[in-house]
Amino acid sequence: MSAKTPKDSLTIMTEIVLPNDTNALHNLRGGKILHWMDIACAIAGGKHSNAVVVTASVDNVSWENPIKLGDVVTITAKVTRTFNTSLELHCEVWAENLPSQTRYKCNEAYYTFVALDSNGRPKKVPALTPETEEEKKQYTLAMRRRELRLVLAGRMKASEAPELKAMFFEE
Amino acid sequence: MSAKTPKDSLTIMTEIVLPNDTNALHNLRGGKILHWMDIACAIAGGKHSNAVVVTASVDNVSWENPIKLGDVVTITAKVTRTFNTSLELHCEVWAENLPSQTRYKCNEAYYTFVALDSNGRPKKVPALTPETEEEKKQYTLAMRRRELRLVLAGRMKASEAPELKAMFFEE
Amino acid sequence: MSAKTPKDSLTIMTEIVLPNDTNALHNLRGGKILHWMDIACAIAGGKHSNAVVVTASVDNVSWENPIKLGDVVTITAKVTRTFNTSLELHCEVWAENLPSQTRYKCNEAYYTFVALDSNGRPKKVPALTPETEEEKKQYTLAMRRRELRLVLAGRMKASEAPELKAMFFEE
Amino acid sequence: MSAKTPKDSLTIMTEIVLPNDTNALHNLRGGKILHWMDIACAIAGGKHSNAVVVTASVDNVSWENPIKLGDVVTITAKVTRTFNTSLELHCEVWAENLPSQTRYKCNEAYYTFVALDSNGRPKKVPALTPETEEEKKQYTLAMRRRELRLVLAGRMKASEAPELKAMFFEE
Amino acid sequence: MSAKTPKDSLTIMTEIVLPNDTNALHNLRGGKILHWMDIACAIAGGKHSNAVVVTASVDNVSWENPIKLGDVVTITAKVTRTFNTSLELHCEVWAENLPSQTRYKCNEAYYTFVALDSNGRPKKVPALTPETEEEKKQYTLAMRRRELRLVLAGRMKASEAPELKAMFFEE
Amino acid sequence: MSAKTPKDSLTIMTEIVLPNDTNALHNLRGGKILHWMDIACAIAGGKHSNAVVVTASVDNVSWENPIKLGDVVTITAKVTRTFNTSLELHCEVWAENLPSQTRYKCNEAYYTFVALDSNGRPKKVPALTPETEEEKKQYTLAMRRRELRLVLAGRMKASEAPELKAMFFEE
Repeated sequence: MSAKTPKDSLTIMTEIVLPNDTNALHNLRGGKILHWMDIACAIAGGKHSNAVVVTASVDNVSWENPIKLGDVVTITAKVTRTFNTSLELHCEVWAENLPSQTRYKCNEAYYTFVALDSNGRPKKVPALTPETEEEKKQYTLAMRRRELRLVLAGRMKASEAPELKAMFFEE
Repeated sequence: MSAKTPKDSLTIMTEIVLPNDTNALHNLRGGKILHWMDIACAIAGGKHSNAVVVTASVDNVSWENPIKLGDVVTITAKVTRTFNTSLELHCEVWAENLPSQTRYKCNEAYYTFVALDSNGRPKKVPALTPETEEEKKQYTLAMRRRELRLVLAGRMKASEAPELKAMFFEE
Repeated sequence: MSAKTPKDSLTIMTEIVLPNDTNALHNLRGGKILHWMDIACAIAGGKHSNAVVVTASVDNVSWENPIKLGDVVTITAKVTRTFNTSLELHCEVWAENLPSQTRYKCNEAYYTFVALDSNGRPKKVPALTPETEEEKKQYTLAMRRRELRLVLAGRMKASEAPELKAMFFEE
Repeated sequence: MSAKTPKDSLTIMTEIVLPNDTNALHNLRGGKILHWMDIACAIAGGKHSNAVVVTASVDNVSWENPIKLGDVVTITAKVTRTFNTSLELHCEVWAENLPSQTRYKCNEAYYTFVALDSNGRPKKVPALTPETEEEKKQYTLAMRRRELRLVLAGRMKASEAPELKAMFFEE
Repeated sequence: MSAKTPKDSLTIMTEIVLPNDTNALHNLRGGKILHWMDIACAIAGGKHSNAVVVTASVDNVSWENPIKLGDVVTITAKVTRTFNTSLELHCEVWAENLPSQTRYKCNEAYYTFVALDSNGRPKKVPALTPETEEEKKQYTLAMRRRELRLVLAGRMKASEAPELKAMFFEE
Repeated sequence: MSAKTPKDSLTIMTEIVLPNDTNALHNLRGGKILHWMDIACAIAGGKHSNAVVVTASVDNVSWENPIKLGDVVTITAKVTRTFNTSLELHCEVWAENLPSQTRYKCNEAYYTFVALDSNGRPKKVPALTPETEEEKKQYTLAMRRRELRLVLAGRMKASEAPELKAMFFEE
């Protein structure tokens, strides 16, 4: 099982905001965005692992800009780090109003998936070799995000999470 | 604008897991769950504020159990605290396999929404009066979660977040 | 197989009226309401019988008020009486316009379902023990509704339906 | 406003039973059938009245046969009688399993719609001239069904419904 | 396997144009029309062959008129000729604005499907006996359309397609 | 209005084949593919013209391989040539079975769209400057395809279409 690069799993989805997914102010519902991000990450995770992957967690997500009805949404996802049978992926959402040529960022998030074999049991995934500077930075900082996830899920004590302390108090 | 209780905004949604929302192992996609939670919270937030509300953020979410095709899903949401024009809501997802009478928890999360007036500008929301012990605890701890959100979004320094420190290092 | 109460099967669904389900006057289509009621009853019937249930009939339904685009719809269903392998359920639909705080009833109906085993054959269901006054009344009057169903379906002669006569000519 | 015939409003819909509309035994949900019937009747009613029509009621419906996944469903609807601003329509549902060349009836129902003008107010509809023997019989018996609807909705006393008595006790 | 007529496979679908299928000018998307035509042809092909049929090709399609939101769309399809294991079907799309009583043609197309047995292998289909003048003409001209398809797919040389030459240079 | 390159309009969509879009052999319906291609082309056309674009025609499409349930589908579209108020786009569909790492081509097509202003009237589009060898070839051959479209739509005589003759008899 040879290592793969983030580029190998890069997934690009393009969607249009339709009436049924908006609220009374014609903004796309936040939950629909999370849904699309999850699908983009599941496909990217499938490309990396050549297995079915299931969502294990999504990190804190903040919305920067609302997406309007009729705008075109581009979702990109790629693997940032692997941990034995799980993968962390980074997903970004940008939107564009074509008539006015306005492009704006909506949000981004880190999702974690677990790869499963055909019996539904966790399955080892290939290693990841980051290539660009950005990918190497994401790879390194993945440890901090992982500690935060484990602490928030009550599966690790904050006092035993050295990276987490750095995340909050040294940056 | 008189205060409301968490019970006033309680929203219960019931859904069935359909084939189009599952992956190859017949598990409901995580993103669909986040989507349903967002809708339940948007309705609960609308009940509290009598206004349109839009998703501002969702906290870290971990999946405890996969939900299977055909199972019945119950999503409950209610307001836990308000902050001028925004509301924090708690949302829980349980699933049930009716033939085998098995009921299991899938996950829970805190969503934050902003209330908007008909011009799309932030609008003040009624205060919240927690009633039960559980609601009072959620109300108090909302400050910690809020600090974590602000720090993760880069809008507050961890060194200026007293509750956050307590969240990780005193619990 | 011990008896259950109506409360054991109580099912609450919450939905939002979306553009694709409305007509040119922005009213929710009546057929969509019947569809949601059927799903709510199927879930309630599944909770009571712990089996797959299929629709056998729906009684006459009249619409009291149209539901408008964007309004929040609450559908409640629970078992009112059982008959060997079939169940009668009562379902009510209320809608709410959150910004104007207006809540109004849309309609109600009685659905009948048959419980099936995994081979698709009718299966005996648990007995029902009504608890409240309202539930006891619904339980008693179920016989009349059943006679009307059988007569309308051509499976019973009106002259052999004593309750039916009472239904029309004594109330 | 000249009279129209039932044939003028005849509407034929063809659908395929898809996985998302079936239950665990791969039968099409009854509520989906009611939904399709409502749409077929709304189109037929629109053809007759050249106006938007909204569902006022649906008469008692019984299912004769379950429809299986993948089968082709044909829904036909046409106007049976008009009453000033409302129309009664008859709708029939047949299904067909193409590989085995089996065609079977699922159910039939009478729907009542009200025609509305562009302000949402009831609007007079053209008269109906039945042509075939079957259409003439449906036209005549429409009075009985109307009385039953009014009595069941609590808007007419059974003792003042002469046709209703005939419906149950003379046929 | 006795021959069938075009009438035996005639399929009529009726649809309403909903918001989610329109663009910013409230016109139905062309791709949705192609999708409905494909389903109508697949059902008609299934009626003729009593087998599962899969799309092999669609001929050049031009749009004559845009279809507007809320209009009622009627799609008709029937078999025009068979070729051992494949079938050519003709499909027409008309739309109608009910309030203004305007009926207009949207487009038409020829689809080709292949019949498959339960193992997914091509399966012989019954012969077709055209009845009307129009059906006989479509049957004869099917050879020209077939040659064009084969030439465009690079599976036949234009110089070996006698009908094709007639199609372009003699009509 | 400065010229644009094909790369400026490049649109990539990624989709998963879901149960509701497949036939009884678990192949994705051809019409769904045509629908996705139309949306990808509409977005690419919108990027090029910064206007709403509507489908004018789609050229003959042949299916090379069926796409299976659960496979990941990638649709790419970009502008190949412009004609005053219309654009020709090329669209390709590839599918991938992730567990077996099999990638295969499904089909390709040329769509033509017309750009419209906010009143629905045709609107001039920017010129196109092809960059790669492939793009230059597609740009040149667009004249032949255009002639074929016009002849098939009965809007040009084959005898007046010099490129068309070359298309069939010189290649």
